[in-house]
Amino acid sequence: MQTLKVDLGERSYPIYIGEGLLDQPELLAPHIAGRQVAIVSNETVAPLYLERLSKTLGAWSVLPVILPDGEAHKNWETLQLIFDALLTARHDRRTTVVALGGGVIGDMAGFAAACYQRGVDFIQVPTTLLSQVDSSVGGKTGINHPLGKNMVGAFYQPNAVLIDTTSLRTLPARELSAGLAEVIKYGLICDEPFLGWLEDNMVALRQLDSTALTEAIRRSCAAKAAVVGADERESGVRATLNLGHTFGHAIETHMGYGVWLHGEAVAAGTVMALEMSMRLGWIDQTARDRGIRLMQDAGLPVVPPEEMTPAHFMEHMAVDKKVLDGRLRLVLLRQLGEAVITDDYPKEILQATLAADYRAIVAQREVVTAQ
Amino acid sequence: MQTLKVDLGERSYPIYIGEGLLDQPELLAPHIAGRQVAIVSNETVAPLYLERLSKTLGAWSVLPVILPDGEAHKNWETLQLIFDALLTARHDRRTTVVALGGGVIGDMAGFAAACYQRGVDFIQVPTTLLSQVDSSVGGKTGINHPLGKNMVGAFYQPNAVLIDTTSLRTLPARELSAGLAEVIKYGLICDEPFLGWLEDNMVALRQLDSTALTEAIRRSCAAKAAVVGADERESGVRATLNLGHTFGHAIETHMGYGVWLHGEAVAAGTVMALEMSMRLGWIDQTARDRGIRLMQDAGLPVVPPEEMTPAHFMEHMAVDKKVLDGRLRLVLLRQLGEAVITDDYPKEILQATLAADYRAIVAQREVVTAQ
Repeated sequence: MQTLKVDLGERSYPIYIGEGLLDQPELLAPHIAGRQVAIVSNETVAPLYLERLSKTLGAWSVLPVILPDGEAHKNWETLQLIFDALLTARHDRRTTVVALGGGVIGDMAGFAAACYQRGVDFIQVPTTLLSQVDSSVGGKTGINHPLGKNMVGAFYQPNAVLIDTTSLRTLPARELSAGLAEVIKYGLICDEPFLGWLEDNMVALRQLDSTALTEAIRRSCAAKAAVVGADERESGVRATLNLGHTFGHAIETHMGYGVWLHGEAVAAGTVMALEMSMRLGWIDQTARDRGIRLMQDAGLPVVPPEEMTPAHFMEHMAVDKKVLDGRLRLVLLRQLGEAVITDDYPKEILQATLAADYRAIVAQREVVTAQ
Repeated sequence: MQTLKVDLGERSYPIYIGEGLLDQPELLAPHIAGRQVAIVSNETVAPLYLERLSKTLGAWSVLPVILPDGEAHKNWETLQLIFDALLTARHDRRTTVVALGGGVIGDMAGFAAACYQRGVDFIQVPTTLLSQVDSSVGGKTGINHPLGKNMVGAFYQPNAVLIDTTSLRTLPARELSAGLAEVIKYGLICDEPFLGWLEDNMVALRQLDSTALTEAIRRSCAAKAAVVGADERESGVRATLNLGHTFGHAIETHMGYGVWLHGEAVAAGTVMALEMSMRLGWIDQTARDRGIRLMQDAGLPVVPPEEMTPAHFMEHMAVDKKVLDGRLRLVLLRQLGEAVITDDYPKEILQATLAADYRAIVAQREVVTAQ
């Protein structure tokens, strides 16, 4: 087992990573203060892991709360089901909410923990690669609004994050790929050598090689923990974690939540950010194509939806949380391994990026690779 | 103008108290970071003060958000109207939410500010006595749930609190009395000399004497600021601010939100807490009757609803936020001016308190007073 620490003063917490951690009550016990625990999960994950985790938590009074599965349910109506269950079972303010599932479950259970009786304890048990390397670490919680993704939420840190790598064995391949989009992101924004490691290990990762997975998760969480420790509330460097996300959120919003997986939208959005960084003269074509190839090798889409016009992107991006006083800030790459957030770019370059022919770009890259 | 400070480290903020402060942009300007301001008010208060405050904020882009009036609307559906308005008007994370109204508006606008884009700036402009002396100070925000009052919310501090005493001129007498319940509470829990001042000035307060009002608000806010500064998240002494509230919340929940005003329920609940403190031998009958008389002189009900049985109280109190691991903690008086929170009391004394004949107690007090 590997243990990392997210360093946030009195709100610091450990991340445990390893095989079979779901069965180890001694990891969770120090993080549960009261006698009541609510395990929030969904209809897909609960049949796989709820009984096992409930058994591990046998010393506590366990309340299961099973939500419908999917980003489309990441809204107030579903959140309300958690409050209903907690209040009906008379959970008091010393209860601990445990999120068992992917990013949607973690975001909703965390937001419920942030709001229930103005804040109760919270533990993340992420079961998807995406949530293990990204959303379970750092305290961002929330729900979607019809007018924008994650527009309602809280910064609320968990007491602990427990990552059992064996839970990836039940994860659909498409979702594994979606998680790899965020893993690749860490290499692009702050760890260039990791890109080389990923190029060497992508096949092993997609075959669920346990050693490779543990290393990829550890390295991703360490990168995220460092960034979050430096900037918890995203006043600066933390925003660089959103490489590809502004374009990606526009894709998710336009297509309807859940049609594209978050990681898939981030992959295509990252390709757009690479393209724009190249058009600004910050990275060269080789660097751009290296990023595109990693996304492709991870089994991810690298071309935005054909039906989306530049106007569609602009419309959705105008409500992005990174808009400040009317100016859209974007996360771009100065070089591979170094991201910046900036609103200081020529508007024509953003327009050209939105209008670029990504099919042609990818096809050209493939020709080059094949030579 | 009087200025108090709520001392919470980097989340410290000032409370301004005085006549005509609504018209002074220089008080608000230092607390507004961006260019966008949303004034959240309700159908009753907006016609009285919205135009005036909008004019004061003429240097900013002002978005008015008008909600239906009343505790019955303190729920998610109404909160959603704030998010809808902010997103439709494309307010970004540098927006400032200004609450213009009573406690319900402050709680909802504050909770919306806490959640919108995971937290934006917030200013309280309370227009009722209750909100001026209580809910606008201290950062408790939230909404009700069908199964319990204030069950969903956040601790979220404002950037500033602006109290214009002239706004009390438009307040219905019944609501002024409701505010006085909380004013009297401060005397009972931590400022015994204030009780004497209140006995001398109750007539002046009910006649809206400006000097008396300013002094009562200043002294109440100072008491609250001291308690909140010592215990922001209610792990200890802050809970004593809830004298009469556990019984009072049971009354509000049972009667339906908004049938009894919050202050009215607190007044009757405080009488119950005085009665229980007397039955425990902590205060004598003279002290109990002094508290009852102050509530009566403030125009407040001192007898719980006749239709409520002890079983009704127990049922509603079981979901109180002060329940910890199944034990109900109550705020009681060791003596006038000194409150404690405790779950260490004989259950029979709680039962006897719930079953007491408050009509007879009050009638007896009146006979004694009349002698």
